[in-house]
Amino acid sequence: MIKVVGIGSGQVKNLTLEAIEAIKTAEVIVGYRTYIEWIQPLIDQNSKAQKIITTGMTGEVKRCQAALEASRKGENVVVISSGDSGIYGMAGLIYELSDSEDEIRVIPGVTSSSIAAATLGAPLMHDFVSISLSDLMTTYDLIMKRVRLAAEGDFVICLYNPRSKGRPHHLEDALKIIKDIQGDDLVVGRVTDAGREEEEVAYSTLKEFDVQDVNMRTMVIIGNQNTHMHHGKMVTPRGYRL
Amino acid sequence: MIKVVGIGSGQVKNLTLEAIEAIKTAEVIVGYRTYIEWIQPLIDQNSKAQKIITTGMTGEVKRCQAALEASRKGENVVVISSGDSGIYGMAGLIYELSDSEDEIRVIPGVTSSSIAAATLGAPLMHDFVSISLSDLMTTYDLIMKRVRLAAEGDFVICLYNPRSKGRPHHLEDALKIIKDIQGDDLVVGRVTDAGREEEEVAYSTLKEFDVQDVNMRTMVIIGNQNTHMHHGKMVTPRGYRL
Repeated sequence: MIKVVGIGSGQVKNLTLEAIEAIKTAEVIVGYRTYIEWIQPLIDQNSKAQKIITTGMTGEVKRCQAALEASRKGENVVVISSGDSGIYGMAGLIYELSDSEDEIRVIPGVTSSSIAAATLGAPLMHDFVSISLSDLMTTYDLIMKRVRLAAEGDFVICLYNPRSKGRPHHLEDALKIIKDIQGDDLVVGRVTDAGREEEEVAYSTLKEFDVQDVNMRTMVIIGNQNTHMHHGKMVTPRGYRL
Repeated sequence: MIKVVGIGSGQVKNLTLEAIEAIKTAEVIVGYRTYIEWIQPLIDQNSKAQKIITTGMTGEVKRCQAALEASRKGENVVVISSGDSGIYGMAGLIYELSDSEDEIRVIPGVTSSSIAAATLGAPLMHDFVSISLSDLMTTYDLIMKRVRLAAEGDFVICLYNPRSKGRPHHLEDALKIIKDIQGDDLVVGRVTDAGREEEEVAYSTLKEFDVQDVNMRTMVIIGNQNTHMHHGKMVTPRGYRL
């Protein structure tokens, strides 16, 4: 049995009871090195003589194959994803590599946009899109087309993987598309290391937003036309008559 | 202090440790009647002499005002939302009704689309939109425009509040728009009462999908062009080279 477990921010308080239970009772724990470090306090409470399988950031296929192999030997395996394992997480790859005999369960977690939104205020009260700016798996053109359509629909926009050394200009390009359609007064929130001790949060308008403040661990949330600052927090009204 | 707490599916295993802790230590607990029933096992573990404030489904403004009043008297208040309190939840309304002195914290939970996706397989591995089909707070035209743009962008589409007696045709209209753009072979998953004991799950193509199977507690997830069934599960490939 493989459980694909979302660990949210990685802080123990942000995990669900089911995720905690899965980690505490696993015989094999598979995950990206940093994520394993985050949940070490839980692993230390695991009474089984467990095996840890880690690889670097781009070792996803190898990690999932190792997990499936262990599970086929009858071991109780947990695969770790940050945020929700079902949103840009490891659940898909495990299924893709599985055959019909493999027993798989996805244990959902709190996704990164929810964690960032909770810090920012309440930006996700209305229809929103999640777009990853990583072009490792999607063409640049499709990413930018999706950004344009999202802006045309006045969706709140959550940008996952907004910036890395390999693609410094994607975020700038995306923000320009949004500005051209929506104007540059939109409220933008950014949260780096959301929900962790080193969390850093800031608000601005699209006009003042500086892409230099963003790295791979930042979530950028761009409001819709109704999003505004309210006593220092970013709020998208749901539309109740007050 | 008010904590706006997301309780996920409402099953205790699906709550985060932080959410459980907040409920167990609250002096006042505010929420829609059904949600309060779901978390009764936690309320029973609360050692404070707590006060429960419930109203029916449409009493949101009253509930939030009652929560703010209690908090201004110095009480430790928890406001309950299903799923994530920050996604179509109570966080926005609490902020909108607050003044600068109110102390508010949003404790995020696992949102309904994550819970439904975990049951279906791994449909949210790629860019997706969340759209609520409720026109209580959004015009019909804007909802349908967003559906159209989402289909044009080949986003995976999560439909919240897909159907109720007051608007039986919205779901049909939305699915027709998607079919016209994307064709009728797209994979659709539906989960009613996701993550709860009475959970019911089904898969079909857009062509075969029957809106009669859907109610207000159903999450409908429509795949993108790459979404397919894999050993009985709905999977959207992330794009790893296998």
